[in-house]
Amino acid sequence: MRTPAQNAELALLLEVAGTPKPGNVDREREYADLRFEHFLAGAVGARDGLDAAADGAPLGEAFERAVEGMSRQRGGNTQFGALLLLTPLVRAAVDRDLSPDGVAAVVEDATVEDAAGFYRAFDHVDVFAGDLPEDADALDVRRGSDAVPEVRDRGLTLYEVMAESADRDGVAREWVDGFGRTFRAADRIADGEGPVPGRAAETFLWLLSRRPDTFVAKQHGPEAARSVMVRAQEAREDGPRLVDAFAKSLVESGVNPGTTADVVAAGLFVALERDGVEV
Amino acid sequence: MRTPAQNAELALLLEVAGTPKPGNVDREREYADLRFEHFLAGAVGARDGLDAAADGAPLGEAFERAVEGMSRQRGGNTQFGALLLLTPLVRAAVDRDLSPDGVAAVVEDATVEDAAGFYRAFDHVDVFAGDLPEDADALDVRRGSDAVPEVRDRGLTLYEVMAESADRDGVAREWVDGFGRTFRAADRIADGEGPVPGRAAETFLWLLSRRPDTFVAKQHGPEAARSVMVRAQEAREDGPRLVDAFAKSLVESGVNPGTTADVVAAGLFVALERDGVEV
Repeated sequence: MRTPAQNAELALLLEVAGTPKPGNVDREREYADLRFEHFLAGAVGARDGLDAAADGAPLGEAFERAVEGMSRQRGGNTQFGALLLLTPLVRAAVDRDLSPDGVAAVVEDATVEDAAGFYRAFDHVDVFAGDLPEDADALDVRRGSDAVPEVRDRGLTLYEVMAESADRDGVAREWVDGFGRTFRAADRIADGEGPVPGRAAETFLWLLSRRPDTFVAKQHGPEAARSVMVRAQEAREDGPRLVDAFAKSLVESGVNPGTTADVVAAGLFVALERDGVEV
Repeated sequence: MRTPAQNAELALLLEVAGTPKPGNVDREREYADLRFEHFLAGAVGARDGLDAAADGAPLGEAFERAVEGMSRQRGGNTQFGALLLLTPLVRAAVDRDLSPDGVAAVVEDATVEDAAGFYRAFDHVDVFAGDLPEDADALDVRRGSDAVPEVRDRGLTLYEVMAESADRDGVAREWVDGFGRTFRAADRIADGEGPVPGRAAETFLWLLSRRPDTFVAKQHGPEAARSVMVRAQEAREDGPRLVDAFAKSLVESGVNPGTTADVVAAGLFVALERDGVEV
């Protein structure tokens, strides 16, 4: 039996091994500055923080540690969103049960200090391109640890921070929604057939065809995200050839549905840990 | 900075990510029953044993633990030989220095109990196909832990066990030869250019072209191993097209130069840990 932290690390690796995952780095596709091996190093580096989450460290501290370790490679942000899902899932697997109710109890218990850890995590990695605008909100995540005094003044818990951005961020939505898509992805992976990376890739395309990816929406606008969703539907109906063409097209235009990949990584963890899916 | 155990785990992952590595599992080639994800799970599972090696556990105990963790996947033996190299290298990085002399001092200090751990490790994984012949030697590794009383009776250290098979096993030869090929591989990886997995693949073919692979020799005979070496020389001279054809041919005939891959993983570790090669 693998420990929950081992399964979480393996989930990160299986996610990037699944191919084709249109627009994302996988075994066969990578960007010049964001390559397959950056995800391998990111997963290895994240493990200490995942171990900390299992061992009872405060959630925000464990998350910051996972992100800090993940960032020790030259590709930049590889698995930030995935770790924001995996940290409470690992804790739920150890302390509660790995169910929507179990993980909801974990995230609802998150504290103001956990919110501080979340903001500090942004110091380790550039999640978004560009400088901070002058009129940026006092709680803009791009402020990183500079926002911590404001977080404390307002007494915001990490759950409250997530709730505030749930309408525009698919990872935050999982936090306030009992990890609904994560558990649906896990069910699909567990019920699938054949090698696990292939099931992950199939689940990725299924998720992508059902809801606009919020990372694409942030980077390229809501219309682009909706168009990617529709094209994912068409690719699924048409079969492997169109899926490959779709994948090529997204990589060429630099459209990376990263939030959907984060949910797949979280779903893989649940499938390994709760459902005993074997590799 | 990554810890030595983290670098060792990452070396296992980078080794399998390098492509093309003719005859070995890599990102683009796998066997029906030995797939890419088995190596991912093997690397994750091995980490506890590598941590134990760094933390000062006896070498044989750390190695057995690494192999036990590695074997928690359905592909069978993925990284047994690589771990037999990495365990003393991790110890040398922590306790001595990561040099031929440093690791020689580590392996020369190995004890009879380390030899017992080595034999016990065979209980966790089928390294060789087939049943034990009736006339098998009392110290045949296929006996696994059943050979431990004989090891103790004869007072054999793990170094002595390795020395006994150094003429027919390329991993054992590293133990008695100051890890010569490992350090040459590390120099080549450190001096290379471009993404690290590509350097690992180039180093694999270079090593394969210079000495017959002992795993191929065990499975298919010495003539087959020599032929693979000559074909590797031809492929290197001719370029990428012949390398790909060579890779395809070896996978089709089930010829897997596993010992050469083990040395590449060990070389990657030294390049990451000693030379500061970055991913």
